[in-house]
Amino acid sequence: MKKRIVLALGGNALQKNGEATAEAQKKIATEVGEIIARLADKYEIVVAHGNGPQVGNILIHEESASTQKAPAMPLETAVAMSQGQIGYWLTQAINNAFLKARQQKSAVTIVSQVVVNRNDPAFKNPTKPIGQFYSAKEAKALAKSKHWVVKEDAGRGWRRVVASPKPIDIVEKDSIKRLVEKGDIVIAAGGGGIPVIRTKILKRLKGVDAVIDKDYAAEKLAELVDADIFVSVTAVPNVYINFGTSEQQAIGAISVQEINRLKKYSYFKAGSMLPKVEAAAKFATNTGRIGIITDIEHLQLALQNRAGTIITK
Amino acid sequence: MKKRIVLALGGNALQKNGEATAEAQKKIATEVGEIIARLADKYEIVVAHGNGPQVGNILIHEESASTQKAPAMPLETAVAMSQGQIGYWLTQAINNAFLKARQQKSAVTIVSQVVVNRNDPAFKNPTKPIGQFYSAKEAKALAKSKHWVVKEDAGRGWRRVVASPKPIDIVEKDSIKRLVEKGDIVIAAGGGGIPVIRTKILKRLKGVDAVIDKDYAAEKLAELVDADIFVSVTAVPNVYINFGTSEQQAIGAISVQEINRLKKYSYFKAGSMLPKVEAAAKFATNTGRIGIITDIEHLQLALQNRAGTIITK
Repeated sequence: MKKRIVLALGGNALQKNGEATAEAQKKIATEVGEIIARLADKYEIVVAHGNGPQVGNILIHEESASTQKAPAMPLETAVAMSQGQIGYWLTQAINNAFLKARQQKSAVTIVSQVVVNRNDPAFKNPTKPIGQFYSAKEAKALAKSKHWVVKEDAGRGWRRVVASPKPIDIVEKDSIKRLVEKGDIVIAAGGGGIPVIRTKILKRLKGVDAVIDKDYAAEKLAELVDADIFVSVTAVPNVYINFGTSEQQAIGAISVQEINRLKKYSYFKAGSMLPKVEAAAKFATNTGRIGIITDIEHLQLALQNRAGTIITK
Repeated sequence: MKKRIVLALGGNALQKNGEATAEAQKKIATEVGEIIARLADKYEIVVAHGNGPQVGNILIHEESASTQKAPAMPLETAVAMSQGQIGYWLTQAINNAFLKARQQKSAVTIVSQVVVNRNDPAFKNPTKPIGQFYSAKEAKALAKSKHWVVKEDAGRGWRRVVASPKPIDIVEKDSIKRLVEKGDIVIAAGGGGIPVIRTKILKRLKGVDAVIDKDYAAEKLAELVDADIFVSVTAVPNVYINFGTSEQQAIGAISVQEINRLKKYSYFKAGSMLPKVEAAAKFATNTGRIGIITDIEHLQLALQNRAGTIITK
């Protein structure tokens, strides 16, 4: 029986050179697609991708060209739009790679809502900057008219900040599981998922303007689809201690206990390696299975326990 | 055993009052969702929706706020974005309706690529206006730099026009069928689908800037998922002859042969009732099953053969 893996692909993975045209991103998707397709012989695969640069550009377009007749879409809907966009590129790339390899397989994208707790403490302290920059005056006016929280961003101007709550469930989990069981490569929970809460009394789904970390969402997805291995695919082959210094050391196989000890020494950068380490460690802790952090070039080797940072309980 | 139906929902269905905010469209989606959820007891359901006003606004935002750092997405990718957007709204609305009715069912959106023939004659004569209006000078410059075809639009300014080729296949058909067989309400082929061709020699999938009629795409989908009934859900309860005149007559049950006779007399407007009539008649012809045209208020009755225009072979 094939092992089931969930890959969390970095949102920057499709914009390596900062080139944001559809053409440039599709070209990189083609390379990523071929690597994923090659794994499909041995693994059942779910891909959760980031969307940072893409949803950023969607918001910039939506907000700066908003009119009464063509009003800007809110963040949660913009995330849904980015899932369609990136999901399409990846699906097509993987399907073409299968065609090239004469494999009778296919990829499919599921638009995914990820549930967060409406009482998540993150909502009281929004920290995640999104969308375009504004002047102080514009920002304060928008804060008032749209009930946004705005903050000054490192001398570059003012931006809206939103909460980054933790994922607790994925609405489409059963459909995703059904398709991966049947052999489809499933692209899901893109951009950390469309953030939704359940309303207080009636428990209805309702979109909220927030950003869910894609590594946490992918980890939740890995648990929900009963994956054997969770991989956070990033820009470097390993997690390191003293990264970027002469003391830099790559971490290979490591236990959750040891990685937690390193975490205490603040070896891992928040918003960068920390969420990946936390997601992989959480998967190992909750399932007793394997959490991996590596880059796409070492992915195949890492799955064979021959590269990458491999976290076990 | 439940009958399987494919519903083609008009793109204007979510913008009844021309209100284009996410909030206004979600509100209408809630009503549509409740009607669809009520049908789920008796039917397996696939929903293919239009995207005219939505993809129009996406293109306006993308193009009018395009910069080198945040370049505009092309039409085919904008269609994918609109599938994420509208699919999310509909999925959430249907799921909430199930929750309200205490039904253990769920809806799911599949990002869908629809294949057209790269030699479709429509590519030689683009007719479908899309995106924003330009001055003659701007339009001609864009035609040159972006290889667009532009046309003057009824005195209102210049617009890009694209081809409207016929759908010949749906890339995600097997996944869609799998999910509907398992009881999911599946939203697919949104906006007529992301238009793709197969390249000449290697048969790779490749996006093209075109617009596929959503009724034709939904009809193709109905054949591919082996539907029992195809319904084009529109703004009026029936198809009419002499529509809008004192001679107006609603058409009830009718054969393909009779409807083709009426077509010859040009009773049905191109770009309006004609594609719906053609799609429903094609479904009846190709499958020997039932093609219906009605509005959402009469949908349930029409499925019981008690309302709507019902086309049989």
